[in-house]
Amino acid sequence: MSSTASRISSSSARPEARKIYVRGPIVFASDFGPATEWVGVCHAVIATIAPEAQVIDLTHSLPQFEAGLAGFVLRDAMPYAPICVAALVVDPGVGTSRRALAVQTGRGDILIGPDNGLLLLSAERIGGVAAAKSITTSLRLDLSGATTFHARDLFCPVAARLTVDLQFAAVGEDIDPQSLVRAPSPFLAVSKGRVACDVIDVDGFGNLRLSARAQALVDSAIDPVDIVWVQSASGEVAAHRAKAFGALTTGTLGLIVDSFGWLCLTLNRGDAAKKLGANRGSRIELRAGPA
Amino acid sequence: MSSTASRISSSSARPEARKIYVRGPIVFASDFGPATEWVGVCHAVIATIAPEAQVIDLTHSLPQFEAGLAGFVLRDAMPYAPICVAALVVDPGVGTSRRALAVQTGRGDILIGPDNGLLLLSAERIGGVAAAKSITTSLRLDLSGATTFHARDLFCPVAARLTVDLQFAAVGEDIDPQSLVRAPSPFLAVSKGRVACDVIDVDGFGNLRLSARAQALVDSAIDPVDIVWVQSASGEVAAHRAKAFGALTTGTLGLIVDSFGWLCLTLNRGDAAKKLGANRGSRIELRAGPA
Amino acid sequence: MSSTASRISSSSARPEARKIYVRGPIVFASDFGPATEWVGVCHAVIATIAPEAQVIDLTHSLPQFEAGLAGFVLRDAMPYAPICVAALVVDPGVGTSRRALAVQTGRGDILIGPDNGLLLLSAERIGGVAAAKSITTSLRLDLSGATTFHARDLFCPVAARLTVDLQFAAVGEDIDPQSLVRAPSPFLAVSKGRVACDVIDVDGFGNLRLSARAQALVDSAIDPVDIVWVQSASGEVAAHRAKAFGALTTGTLGLIVDSFGWLCLTLNRGDAAKKLGANRGSRIELRAGPA
Repeated sequence: MSSTASRISSSSARPEARKIYVRGPIVFASDFGPATEWVGVCHAVIATIAPEAQVIDLTHSLPQFEAGLAGFVLRDAMPYAPICVAALVVDPGVGTSRRALAVQTGRGDILIGPDNGLLLLSAERIGGVAAAKSITTSLRLDLSGATTFHARDLFCPVAARLTVDLQFAAVGEDIDPQSLVRAPSPFLAVSKGRVACDVIDVDGFGNLRLSARAQALVDSAIDPVDIVWVQSASGEVAAHRAKAFGALTTGTLGLIVDSFGWLCLTLNRGDAAKKLGANRGSRIELRAGPA
Repeated sequence: MSSTASRISSSSARPEARKIYVRGPIVFASDFGPATEWVGVCHAVIATIAPEAQVIDLTHSLPQFEAGLAGFVLRDAMPYAPICVAALVVDPGVGTSRRALAVQTGRGDILIGPDNGLLLLSAERIGGVAAAKSITTSLRLDLSGATTFHARDLFCPVAARLTVDLQFAAVGEDIDPQSLVRAPSPFLAVSKGRVACDVIDVDGFGNLRLSARAQALVDSAIDPVDIVWVQSASGEVAAHRAKAFGALTTGTLGLIVDSFGWLCLTLNRGDAAKKLGANRGSRIELRAGPA
Repeated sequence: MSSTASRISSSSARPEARKIYVRGPIVFASDFGPATEWVGVCHAVIATIAPEAQVIDLTHSLPQFEAGLAGFVLRDAMPYAPICVAALVVDPGVGTSRRALAVQTGRGDILIGPDNGLLLLSAERIGGVAAAKSITTSLRLDLSGATTFHARDLFCPVAARLTVDLQFAAVGEDIDPQSLVRAPSPFLAVSKGRVACDVIDVDGFGNLRLSARAQALVDSAIDPVDIVWVQSASGEVAAHRAKAFGALTTGTLGLIVDSFGWLCLTLNRGDAAKKLGANRGSRIELRAGPA
């Protein structure tokens, strides 16, 4: 009897022990780059709050300052993750009045990060925005009084607590999903025989991911040709259409559909970005024939 | 009785529950580099299939396109890993007809990756090839229809499933271990007073790992001397033999045996690769005296 | 009765099962950089010895060769970590006679690494040095006979064993905490209207962390001004004081207090390090007015 009473009282002293928090890992992505202790400090904060949490570093090489381009990388990656809490951080406005968001997706994830368009693109790929909140500042972890490192002081602490002792309902005030900031889409203009687009990512091999999918080649009627003409800052060159990197002769510029469905310029065993003098944000034009 | 019957029927409905899968972590290595979401997407895929799996990132900076050089890095590293499932990916032939392999080692590991010589060198250091299979394409994870990202769509999914619900026996058809592609060994030519070799790796300090071990200095009769002459693309310089980086005067070129047993050119508190104008694949000649 | 006896005997056969080892993760930091298998090999070694251990990579981009600068980065990061065993490795003296340390902090951590000042700065921020030991060489993991990779062969193995079967008391001989090597502090000279200091870190955005805190601006009586003059190797420029990166006009040089309390030169959406031609160790002078 006293044993039962004791159990009840212990249970009512920790009512949250009966609530269901988010199961699944914490996904973490940022533009911090590989050469910093910032990512590790965020891991340390998470481990302090949620020692049992599994953390998946999705990438820390998102385009710096560019929530729109970064959002395009994340929206392709997030569907591969299990249902999770995600701290997604490309945040040039940290310390200004931009809102800190917690977005619940239709799939059951909770995405945490700044209100600059980064989260919205991902949410739309994993069930849409089911609910959105502006994170209350009382949830800040405040060891330093700093205002410029919300990944460490707000986003990761909230993400960690959502796996152990914090309900989504208690994260902050409801906000209208329609009020979320939307980042501009990368440029794409399709006309007869011509696809103008931007480089949205450059991978570790120098491959250029373009802001156009295979459908753009169909829509522009470029599609039947085997050789596409590529106009970049460094001039006009021919690219051979191929299904795989290894199907191209070494040193030949190729145009493939990459593993996320985007058109991609590649130089087999070379560096297409260097050859074309192109980077994230560069304008590229594809044409059916030479100009 | 009905209880026993029920247990049997439940058991026969999930016969794999009685099988033994690979215990131990998933080791993951690639040439994807640090600046990409590819590694994180593979982690996401593994976490979706095998939420409990521990993943060890051995390195994602293997020499790009060069299965042979990459295999030499991995074969030194793998003996430090516990018995594991390993997804090892340097795969310039992805999407072509090269086979996808699952190799069981004598130690009990299962190595997953392309048939280009990468796995074979590692297998030979951890018990040899006990069995080999060509992975059946029905095991593909197909969210995108892509043909150029087997790490995400085939190698990591198969590695993950081998820790939860897939037997090695069910991975694909047996193939003759003798039929595995062998990568060419790095160049090494030893003659009296002369060791010609290649740079097989450059570390984060600019140290050059050579394709020769200390024995090559003995075999060439260079061994007794304290100063070895080094011929590279940028000319001839003297290197002092030493047992530790810190035993060299700052700025002095040294020749040491590195922590994996290879001869290594180093510049204490400097960058030997820059000083010698050498990179992975560069030819280096060591001599007992100046040319 | 026989059951009890059996339990006692089993227990006395494994007396270490009753001892308390360090709970909490293994924190790992080094100057190995992102482009190497060294970090992964250390993870492999830890997983072999302590399969259940959680490893947090705090950073592997500490300043190379510079235990003092690296110590300043770590001392800011370690307070964010839970109580842990930490392997901290910036070790240009590896293989020489420098001691290998295990330092117990007042907070309960055990810090493992070379005796060159790296650990001491961190220990002082997390409870001070409660006890120090020189690690006995018999704890070496010796697969290769190498003398130049103590992270793999000594520091990480000892860190891993401290979480499973090794007591701090058994790590080696006690040494006097006063005998620990102390790294020189970064330069700082404050006078009326002038703060001379060093760059102690450059982050992935090109922001320059200085060896001075906000108090130095008060002590030098620079504090009330909104524009501070910055003298670097590339000349004199004005920097605007701000509370957040986003509060600065794009392209404007700013002086902020960073998230660890240090003065920091930043170029909003640009690279301050490039603009000022400055790197880790560069001298910077702040003045109330132009020279």
